[in-house]
Amino acid sequence: MESAHRGKQSFVFRQTPAILSFSSVAGKKEADGPLGTSFDKTAKDTTFGQKTWEKAETQMQRTVMELALHKASLREDQLDAAFVGDLLNQCVGSSFCMRDRDIPTFGLYGACSTMAESLMLAAMSVNAGYCRSALALTSSHFASSERQYRFPLAYGGQRTPTAQWTVTGAGAAVVGQTGDGPFLLNATVGSIIDAGIKDAANMGAAMAPAAYETIRAHFDDLGTSPEDYDLIVTGDLGKLGYQLVCDLFARDGVQIEERYRDCGVMIFDCKRQDVHCGGSGCGCSASVLCGHLLGKMRQREISKLLFCGTGALLSPLTTQQGESIPAVCHAVTICTERS
Amino acid sequence: MESAHRGKQSFVFRQTPAILSFSSVAGKKEADGPLGTSFDKTAKDTTFGQKTWEKAETQMQRTVMELALHKASLREDQLDAAFVGDLLNQCVGSSFCMRDRDIPTFGLYGACSTMAESLMLAAMSVNAGYCRSALALTSSHFASSERQYRFPLAYGGQRTPTAQWTVTGAGAAVVGQTGDGPFLLNATVGSIIDAGIKDAANMGAAMAPAAYETIRAHFDDLGTSPEDYDLIVTGDLGKLGYQLVCDLFARDGVQIEERYRDCGVMIFDCKRQDVHCGGSGCGCSASVLCGHLLGKMRQREISKLLFCGTGALLSPLTTQQGESIPAVCHAVTICTERS
Repeated sequence: MESAHRGKQSFVFRQTPAILSFSSVAGKKEADGPLGTSFDKTAKDTTFGQKTWEKAETQMQRTVMELALHKASLREDQLDAAFVGDLLNQCVGSSFCMRDRDIPTFGLYGACSTMAESLMLAAMSVNAGYCRSALALTSSHFASSERQYRFPLAYGGQRTPTAQWTVTGAGAAVVGQTGDGPFLLNATVGSIIDAGIKDAANMGAAMAPAAYETIRAHFDDLGTSPEDYDLIVTGDLGKLGYQLVCDLFARDGVQIEERYRDCGVMIFDCKRQDVHCGGSGCGCSASVLCGHLLGKMRQREISKLLFCGTGALLSPLTTQQGESIPAVCHAVTICTERS
Repeated sequence: MESAHRGKQSFVFRQTPAILSFSSVAGKKEADGPLGTSFDKTAKDTTFGQKTWEKAETQMQRTVMELALHKASLREDQLDAAFVGDLLNQCVGSSFCMRDRDIPTFGLYGACSTMAESLMLAAMSVNAGYCRSALALTSSHFASSERQYRFPLAYGGQRTPTAQWTVTGAGAAVVGQTGDGPFLLNATVGSIIDAGIKDAANMGAAMAPAAYETIRAHFDDLGTSPEDYDLIVTGDLGKLGYQLVCDLFARDGVQIEERYRDCGVMIFDCKRQDVHCGGSGCGCSASVLCGHLLGKMRQREISKLLFCGTGALLSPLTTQQGESIPAVCHAVTICTERS
């Protein structure tokens, strides 16, 4: 068997696992944004019928998981594994979604990169024959994130110009061995990069160097360039982080702008919706991938996508202790064809 | 290629990845316990020379990672992947250990099951050829856990009889394609089980049903029984949880006691060291596996080990919201021989 390993930090999926189905839900603000019609479900009441914001997040995960399974015509007990995680302390959004479901479950913490990390591990598991089908699942919620990472909503804190808005949303994808695709071709696993940014309200600047390093490694390992993709998307760098990635590539003489977008910029009309630099959170890239992007791939409007989840690996406590912000980015190539 | 999938939730590693090296560190109380001489390093000062408990935890991870790499004669840049996680909010113990190291890193959250989850994923990655070598790494710290999950130490809170003591310790193992072993034969991925326990000071009772279910599934999927192992260990069920697992197997007519131990009971002299039901935390099973247990395997005193990491997936917030405690258990078979 030829090794799946490529270059410094990439590997190829020789069996090209297929995305059997995908599903997304989002909140009121996201429904009012430019991608509002691409989500499977949106809710005006962002409690999703639950008593607390954290339970609302679990409810969103339940909804996308059940929808994705339904679309793939799979029962829960036909899933061989789930790769799940979220932003809540101890990842309780995911753990409470998966309890008593009889699905072998791997818990992840990749901050806002979780959709890419979970998709990558699901593809690795299916490609290697460990699983016949595997779920990738994540979420975030504006209100649960605000109170955990920043301030209680009732406090009415002011935001700085570089701040982003945590997306209320969830995404799920089921990966399997066969099907009509889109297919997962390869992945690049990110190293953790700390660029020395200490402002927890400037995640874009903290994460941009990690995004650059992973995309750069991806091109080097796989011998590709921006022109080989219809679209390269990062998860939630926002307007400032997007510009920094473009600048970093420009220093290498690579013009990436034309093919490159950021889910955090796509999901909101930043000015009209008053979200400063754009959207953020695991649910940002998850709901954009499992709604708009994979939808466009099914419609053959996008043929080859490099999906790059980005995550800032800080905690409120590390910020209080004067630490800078480590970040990570994982990338997965998704294609409508098997090669 | 024959599928690696077995039964409901297990898979076999046909290439039998090898544990190239392992390393453990622990604190003062652990050094004073029955396994005190089995750790590579122990510290009387549990700040490990750092300014905060959280930085101390990162320092422990750094130490075991560097020791394990040294023992395997590997440089950092020769590691193809690291699977890391811990108990701190946003897993900052691991993220800060791995920053700027140029090692592709997967962040995990499996609560106290992390050593088993990381070892399983490292073995899956090496076995499938995604990585030539991969690191499994985790830690916990009594003082950082107390203040995050319970009360500031200075508060002097009383403990109930079912309480456990979070181990100050870390463990690392490097998995590779060849070597003298011990070897990783197969793994069983746990589902998340919620037995309805709501007492956050009774983790043993919360986790025992998950441990039982995973070990049961392991026997069923692989066609084995307790007699096929020299030793079966769970991570941190403590005295009460240990007894519950024995009782649950006894109901099936299976006498597991003779071959079965728990790292949380092994690491402390519960009565003399005043730790109530025993040790807990990611660092409990990690430091016992990567010290005492793998040490005994290298000395051929244990030939076949079923290592079962156990984790309680609660958060202080879910307890405050009146929720019960979901739990998970992952199991890995480690053997001195390749079959």
